[in-house]
Amino acid sequence: MEPAIKFIGKIQSALKNIEDCPLQGAENAPEVTIIISPEFIEGIKDLAAGQEVLLLTWLHLADRTVIKCYPWHNYDAPFMGVFSTRSPDRPNPIGVHPVKILSVSANGIIKVSGLEALDQTPVIDIKPVLKK
Amino acid sequence: MEPAIKFIGKIQSALKNIEDCPLQGAENAPEVTIIISPEFIEGIKDLAAGQEVLLLTWLHLADRTVIKCYPWHNYDAPFMGVFSTRSPDRPNPIGVHPVKILSVSANGIIKVSGLEALDQTPVIDIKPVLKK
Repeated sequence: MEPAIKFIGKIQSALKNIEDCPLQGAENAPEVTIIISPEFIEGIKDLAAGQEVLLLTWLHLADRTVIKCYPWHNYDAPFMGVFSTRSPDRPNPIGVHPVKILSVSANGIIKVSGLEALDQTPVIDIKPVLKK
Repeated sequence: MEPAIKFIGKIQSALKNIEDCPLQGAENAPEVTIIISPEFIEGIKDLAAGQEVLLLTWLHLADRTVIKCYPWHNYDAPFMGVFSTRSPDRPNPIGVHPVKILSVSANGIIKVSGLEALDQTPVIDIKPVLKK
């Protein structure tokens, strides 16, 4: 029996449609606001402005049946295995975004630097950045 | 309605118990084998030895009710918000592991470099590494 994801919050962004999304990561992406749900607010009490974190989102509009796809915006290329791409259309559409925290408020509102994610995208985790 | 995760494969590792786990990431962690389930094998056809990828796992033994916890192995420290830690005990116990592919076989067996994950841990995604 496979487990359900829990949504810990959601994103508010100026990107309202997929067509508004920049091609990759921080490139021209707008700042976004994360609204943490009340039952998870204690979990963010040690986040602070200036920290670099890894934000995980659930790309809720994705097609989860995709196993092979075109490389991003390159329809002349051959189909690739989805696990060699960062396509949002994949069996588990988890977005992994390195971001910088700009502000955190006690009522669970976090502002972060540029991020390619649509308005209303569910947030599923926040972690310290990976050490190399 | 919150969606279910799909397991795309599982890990075979010499780490059979939590007590066997190295403290963080690659430090002394053993090579592991990933067994991709038949229905997802087409998705790995473009993975190859030498590639660096981000492996996402579902830490299936985690306590998903944890919102605050001790920093890892530091029981004198104050409780921290879980989203400032890499504790496996968290609402969505997703492991994010940068690894190097050592080999890939046509029947869905991938060997990767050092990784801190228990034997039988479900695999949920493989992505190209993050660009900085």
